Amino acid sequence: MSPTMKLNPNVIDLEYAVRGPIPQRAAEMAREGVRTIPCNIGNPQALGQKPLTFFRQVLSLVEEPDRVRRERALHALRAENPAALAGHDLVPADAIDYAAEILDKLPTGTGAYTESNGPRFVREAVARFIDARDDVATTGAPASDPDAIFLTNGASEAVRHGLDLLIGDKRDGIMIPIPQYPLYSATIHKLGGTQVDYYLSEEDDWAMTREAMETSLAGAQAKGIDVKAIVVINPGNPTGSILPDESIREVIDFAEKHSLVIMADEVYQENLYGDATFTSFARVLGNRDVTLLSFHSTSKGFYGECGKRGGYVEVRNPPKVEGSDVGFIDILLKLASVNLCSNVVGHLMTYLMVNRPKEGDESHALFTSERDAIIEALETKANRIREAFAQMDGMECYGRTGAMYLFPRIGKLPAGTGDFDYCMALLEKTGLCTVNGSGFGQVDGTHHLRIAFLPPTDLLEEVLPRWIEFHNRYVNG
Amino acid sequence: MSPTMKLNPNVIDLEYAVRGPIPQRAAEMAREGVRTIPCNIGNPQALGQKPLTFFRQVLSLVEEPDRVRRERALHALRAENPAALAGHDLVPADAIDYAAEILDKLPTGTGAYTESNGPRFVREAVARFIDARDDVATTGAPASDPDAIFLTNGASEAVRHGLDLLIGDKRDGIMIPIPQYPLYSATIHKLGGTQVDYYLSEEDDWAMTREAMETSLAGAQAKGIDVKAIVVINPGNPTGSILPDESIREVIDFAEKHSLVIMADEVYQENLYGDATFTSFARVLGNRDVTLLSFHSTSKGFYGECGKRGGYVEVRNPPKVEGSDVGFIDILLKLASVNLCSNVVGHLMTYLMVNRPKEGDESHALFTSERDAIIEALETKANRIREAFAQMDGMECYGRTGAMYLFPRIGKLPAGTGDFDYCMALLEKTGLCTVNGSGFGQVDGTHHLRIAFLPPTDLLEEVLPRWIEFHNRYVNG
Repeated sequence: MSPTMKLNPNVIDLEYAVRGPIPQRAAEMAREGVRTIPCNIGNPQALGQKPLTFFRQVLSLVEEPDRVRRERALHALRAENPAALAGHDLVPADAIDYAAEILDKLPTGTGAYTESNGPRFVREAVARFIDARDDVATTGAPASDPDAIFLTNGASEAVRHGLDLLIGDKRDGIMIPIPQYPLYSATIHKLGGTQVDYYLSEEDDWAMTREAMETSLAGAQAKGIDVKAIVVINPGNPTGSILPDESIREVIDFAEKHSLVIMADEVYQENLYGDATFTSFARVLGNRDVTLLSFHSTSKGFYGECGKRGGYVEVRNPPKVEGSDVGFIDILLKLASVNLCSNVVGHLMTYLMVNRPKEGDESHALFTSERDAIIEALETKANRIREAFAQMDGMECYGRTGAMYLFPRIGKLPAGTGDFDYCMALLEKTGLCTVNGSGFGQVDGTHHLRIAFLPPTDLLEEVLPRWIEFHNRYVNG
Repeated sequence: MSPTMKLNPNVIDLEYAVRGPIPQRAAEMAREGVRTIPCNIGNPQALGQKPLTFFRQVLSLVEEPDRVRRERALHALRAENPAALAGHDLVPADAIDYAAEILDKLPTGTGAYTESNGPRFVREAVARFIDARDDVATTGAPASDPDAIFLTNGASEAVRHGLDLLIGDKRDGIMIPIPQYPLYSATIHKLGGTQVDYYLSEEDDWAMTREAMETSLAGAQAKGIDVKAIVVINPGNPTGSILPDESIREVIDFAEKHSLVIMADEVYQENLYGDATFTSFARVLGNRDVTLLSFHSTSKGFYGECGKRGGYVEVRNPPKVEGSDVGFIDILLKLASVNLCSNVVGHLMTYLMVNRPKEGDESHALFTSERDAIIEALETKANRIREAFAQMDGMECYGRTGAMYLFPRIGKLPAGTGDFDYCMALLEKTGLCTVNGSGFGQVDGTHHLRIAFLPPTDLLEEVLPRWIEFHNRYVNG
């Protein structure tokens, strides 16, 4: 018999619903041969979304550098003798040039550890991307600093680094929206800090209000909590809502007044549909001196390259560190250095995300059409699910469509049951794996679920009628 | 002015010498255009080591799945008309088949999140690798369990997960060898636990002794520390020493007697030279019921794929968890799930590491010759550096050659200086970046440095005479 051992209590009772009991039951069903539809998580390629051709062509070349030479030789062969390779697709010349350029900037390719914060040429490209996105040339806002950018294994690791710096013990509080993505609650709990909830206004399309923020902060301070930061997820996860510029300004005012760090989770900044536009916290911040950590990822957007685990955090206005001569950025660098560096393919995927084929490039047309098709399909699927909700008794879905999720309120449930029971029953009956609202936090007494609107259209058309049928039977049962 | 902020004290004073002030100075020199030789870290491809051709061919194909079809078409074209592609190298058919098999087992390729512990087919392959390595078919030891294997972003993350489970607060102690790899000291410190040192016997080729372990444990217990685990690094880092089977048995006896978890860092298990052989902790453990976490990585060995951040931990005999119905493995899985999964290219690199071209395969001969050339070159370079030590006044290097490092004792230094000063001066004078012994821990009053024996031979031949000259001048200066 192995001995009994006392483990870290903050790890034992960790909760992480997007990979919790419902997805675990789905995995069990899948092993038993039942078809399940994994909508518990924003994992587009697991539901058949194709990667962008150009991205993969470049990454494939970088992985085997000798191919740059060989693919160029095939182009030369075709140029010499057009019939020689008739019917064979060659890798486009611009993808080959792009890969050669990466290997020129990073001669060790994917094989060596890089700097702890990632290769500088990638951080420079990220900075240029941010500056272009936020129009710094015209707004006069400060340019992004490549040395304040840290490339990480997905945005998750970046968030963990940020929280790791801010949380010393349980008196340190972090404000998070309710509902929230459970990476925040789980990481705060694991690090032994205190989660300070502020509530979004569902009926007002999940808006943030100054009043909710002030109430939350005052409540925490009354309990002796030293609130360090406020987390904002925009576009929202799980809500899909998109913050208006005034709300962003309100958060900045609030953070400035109370000396809080803003942690802006902006990983869904390219998951916009219809006429929606994205405004970054950095853009609204401009020249104001409030500490901002903003997070981005290669896992979302139209690319959905989740397996690459690419991501970054950009720091603006790092705070002075109490009792230390070492700066915030240097401490973050030291923390990152303990694991040497994040994965290099993730770095390069990040580079591609911020440095795409340009107009006039050979690959531009295909890239653009693939991108547009993905975004259009996502919007169509979200709309189809919303239409289904309209046929479900008591189901209401607030907020416009953003990110990859819908988060409807289940207004009617059998007495004594909650959204966990509903989602588990939905899984058992239809194979559809969603996550119950309680996994994200919600106003007491309300019930929700989060669904990622990712399944292929035919699968969706097949499962939606079964969901409607299940729903109306279950809630009235 | 940004406000002053109190940060996590355990992060502020983190120390991590392999990326500390000396490597930082090297980076500064490199930016100023000075040639530096990064021997501070085991990063073979940064010093010109080539990746194994087969590994990269497969990874390149998996990255762009359509190439499986295209490369087969090129083979067909050549078969039809041998002159059509004269002079062009095609990807070997076995690499194409291998990639196709991976894509068959993991249809989402590198694009989707996988299970939190990594794709099952990779964990199964790791289990088979462990069983073959340890001859379980003949020894009767228990087979490795794929569900007790966790794929991680390098072994670093696996070590962090293990320590995260074991360390609740500063009364929780972890025994680590001195000298040690600073991942351990830094992570224990960051998690707020207590580092409990046990000393290796330098003159006895860095052997572990039962007495040193017992003394260390008793000392910690006398201070009220609850010692949870003992870390063993074999082959040693920074020492390069290789543990005899008796020492491994001694550690197991010790851990059993005191109910400790063994954390066996076995990432250098394929960095063996001459007639050295590797025995795993799992093999010596056999059927004994002691908790073992063993770590492995794609970053070391002859492959040196550091940028991939592939690694794993295998758990044997997980302990019962005090006060919890949830098992150790399930808690580890929950912890891993908060970051969704580690990077998929790292998973696949791990798969390749444990599942290589077999005798009879088309790629076997090239693979074997590349492997042998790398291992031979490493041994030759280690020997050349040892020869140089013999010409350095007071320099003594104990232990046989293992891992990627030599850790000589600097027996003579100018009064009032230490190994940090020596290594910094060596860097300034020769461009050679090493790490001072104090970064790993050492007996008080002794001085060492760690050098990774990785530079290309011509560079080494150029720098060694300059090092000898520097040394004899510096220590007698």
